[in-house]
Amino acid sequence: MAIAKLFVANRGEIAVRIIRAARELGIATVQAVSAADRDMLAARLADEVVEIGPAHARKSYLDMDAVLRGAIESGADAIHPGYGFLSENAAFAEKVEAAGLVFVGPKAETIRAMGDKATARAMASAAGVPCVPGSEGRVEGVAEAERVAKAIGYPVMIKASAGGGGRGIRVAESPSELEKLIPQASAEALAAFGDGGLYLERFVAHARHVEVQILGDGTRAIHVFERECSLQRRRQKVWEEAPAACLSPETRVALCASAVRLAESVGYRGAGTLEYLYDGRTGEFFFIEMNTRIQVEHPVSEMITGIDLVREMIRVAGGAPLAYAQDDVVAKGHAIEVRINAEDPAKGFLPGPGTVTALTVPGGMGVRFDGMLYPGYQVPPFYDSLLGKLIVWDETRDGAIDRLARALAELKVEGLPTTTALHAALARDADVRAGAVHTRWLEGWLDAHPLGSPQ
Amino acid sequence: MAIAKLFVANRGEIAVRIIRAARELGIATVQAVSAADRDMLAARLADEVVEIGPAHARKSYLDMDAVLRGAIESGADAIHPGYGFLSENAAFAEKVEAAGLVFVGPKAETIRAMGDKATARAMASAAGVPCVPGSEGRVEGVAEAERVAKAIGYPVMIKASAGGGGRGIRVAESPSELEKLIPQASAEALAAFGDGGLYLERFVAHARHVEVQILGDGTRAIHVFERECSLQRRRQKVWEEAPAACLSPETRVALCASAVRLAESVGYRGAGTLEYLYDGRTGEFFFIEMNTRIQVEHPVSEMITGIDLVREMIRVAGGAPLAYAQDDVVAKGHAIEVRINAEDPAKGFLPGPGTVTALTVPGGMGVRFDGMLYPGYQVPPFYDSLLGKLIVWDETRDGAIDRLARALAELKVEGLPTTTALHAALARDADVRAGAVHTRWLEGWLDAHPLGSPQ
Repeated sequence: MAIAKLFVANRGEIAVRIIRAARELGIATVQAVSAADRDMLAARLADEVVEIGPAHARKSYLDMDAVLRGAIESGADAIHPGYGFLSENAAFAEKVEAAGLVFVGPKAETIRAMGDKATARAMASAAGVPCVPGSEGRVEGVAEAERVAKAIGYPVMIKASAGGGGRGIRVAESPSELEKLIPQASAEALAAFGDGGLYLERFVAHARHVEVQILGDGTRAIHVFERECSLQRRRQKVWEEAPAACLSPETRVALCASAVRLAESVGYRGAGTLEYLYDGRTGEFFFIEMNTRIQVEHPVSEMITGIDLVREMIRVAGGAPLAYAQDDVVAKGHAIEVRINAEDPAKGFLPGPGTVTALTVPGGMGVRFDGMLYPGYQVPPFYDSLLGKLIVWDETRDGAIDRLARALAELKVEGLPTTTALHAALARDADVRAGAVHTRWLEGWLDAHPLGSPQ
Repeated sequence: MAIAKLFVANRGEIAVRIIRAARELGIATVQAVSAADRDMLAARLADEVVEIGPAHARKSYLDMDAVLRGAIESGADAIHPGYGFLSENAAFAEKVEAAGLVFVGPKAETIRAMGDKATARAMASAAGVPCVPGSEGRVEGVAEAERVAKAIGYPVMIKASAGGGGRGIRVAESPSELEKLIPQASAEALAAFGDGGLYLERFVAHARHVEVQILGDGTRAIHVFERECSLQRRRQKVWEEAPAACLSPETRVALCASAVRLAESVGYRGAGTLEYLYDGRTGEFFFIEMNTRIQVEHPVSEMITGIDLVREMIRVAGGAPLAYAQDDVVAKGHAIEVRINAEDPAKGFLPGPGTVTALTVPGGMGVRFDGMLYPGYQVPPFYDSLLGKLIVWDETRDGAIDRLARALAELKVEGLPTTTALHAALARDADVRAGAVHTRWLEGWLDAHPLGSPQ
């Protein structure tokens, strides 16, 4: 059924993003807010606002019953979960659909299958998607782990089956390290995710992070090309690009085709992302995991293709077939997104919530800002530190970096520390300019380049 | 020679636009300001600021010697004139080049030829560009005017040879009207432009305004497709689009090819625009005039092609050949620009200078804002009322209108009247949605739709 009123079960910039897409589709919006978020930008932009709980995420944005109650009472016929919070919670998707509402995302069974990383890996293999050499599903106990590790070769990564987002990953260089880390990792996974299951993968040194954007309508799936997100700090993405400049045209074709195979094999519905490791020395790519939701960095794919991913995921959730054939998806130019966080890079990225006293957003050719800020807004201390995303496009990657530097120089967020100066320094860096980076490059760079206070 | 330091001889949003392009090219910028403009956004963004005179335009931005002196004293090696002011002044272009500086625009002789509308018309005819049936050059006296008018058929338009921008145009329905209007028009043209020369053209009822964007390097010229700017008030453009949805593909090809012929016939250098009347009933197009400068509405062409027109005109001025072959210029989707003016549509578009007390600029997918505003900025009363341009892009024209409506709802400029509500009303209008407009449509619509106060 076509959606008439959409309940936005998220906050911050992604809530603003969803409201914008819904409004352009002529869909009314209801913004869920915690008590700490009544004044956020999304609440100002939405048609209606419903308070779903106190400042604690567990009692509001993560509280399935509170979210569902808010949606039903507001008369919404669909729920958009955004990213994080309940976006990859299969039980929540089931509850939403059981209540007769549309969950803007894939089927609950898809979320569940992809949410278990070992199952996802097995399904990827079945669809002919290369996976990092590793255990076939979970490893049970140290002895099995040692056998598997010997077969795939050290160093190996220990990952939590129920994990994701880079959380709970350890690297063992030797059997003795493995013996020590397996029980620790299992105990921590149990505590963090309610599931102590682990699996092993080969550790690819100097790996790059590439990922493929997928859109599906349950019957047919297409890719919207790939992104590279190798600039990470503590496994959190900091700077993202589309396309991945490191790929050859042949590798790009193979990579994107592999993602479509997996998406079609699960009858994927909505927007999703398959994450891969890319080994620049061998040209091999390896599936890591699938995120069954919209991602923070989706705008770079929008900028190179012109496709509004959030609008399309809402359309498809409403029952429409995909508006695009694969041949309709044409990439042009290069886009870069940088995350503007309320953190002080000069103080170990210490989060700095507070009040925005003044704001200047850059504009002009090829510049997009997806934000949650306005002058006078009090950034609450209860949530992640993302304030907004500065996205630039130009015909070439060099041009995009020049444009990014120009736009960063115009961006002024006063009253808070931000990561703006970090990005400006990265835009001037020769390795970044050359694209000579990998997923651990930024941490090394940060050690070598102590940043002054950004304000 | 490559430009190292660019003197920006303009103000407002176009000065900001030029600084952004220069910065992305690694070119230092010097902003010329009148005493009234020391605090404008461009002055805040430029590397250096030079005061060239008092608040009066004639003693600052229009004072050739003051501008040139400012450029020379600042060590700039090039001058960008923007639009308006000295941008189409051939004598100024000559002075700049005589002083050994680069004029970012065409050769002085091109400006001079195109600046005389009768000469331009003759050159267009010579290049095989259709012109509105009319006099061959100037008409001398009432008797000749009556002969010409009889041949081309009434109603006829009387235009000033040295005019432009829609100024000084009159329509005569009959010989007796012509007899009365010719002496009036000549006297007014003499007073306004220092030249009483007139020419005649057929008056095309319900004409649409289309125009072709040109880029040239003095040797080769290309088109960057066309725009439609039929929504006008008192011959001033209000809302602009690219492409012109009213054209058939065949007409588009013929129109754009005609513009390239004229541009190449004069060895055009820089960015320019050929303006045409389009008769939607017959599918005929007629050349009106050429603007030998960047235009206010250039961003819609940038949005559909990805080509940075201001950057390219600076590159070419620095001696580089055009970076594009014609086949590189590919149009995708639809873009709309609306002019946000400090005027009150509810009070006859009375200009309302004052202080910006709060500002919210829309963002997100497909939205661009080219502005000159910041909170606390005092809009001076001495200049035109353009505050900024909201530009949107989407895959389709309908989608672009929906996005425009969404973005307009987010735009808040407090402390001043603005034309935002006018554009929001136009975005809801059925004729605008259907594209069923012409150059006099808006004036009729304004008579029929009295707007409430926009704030």
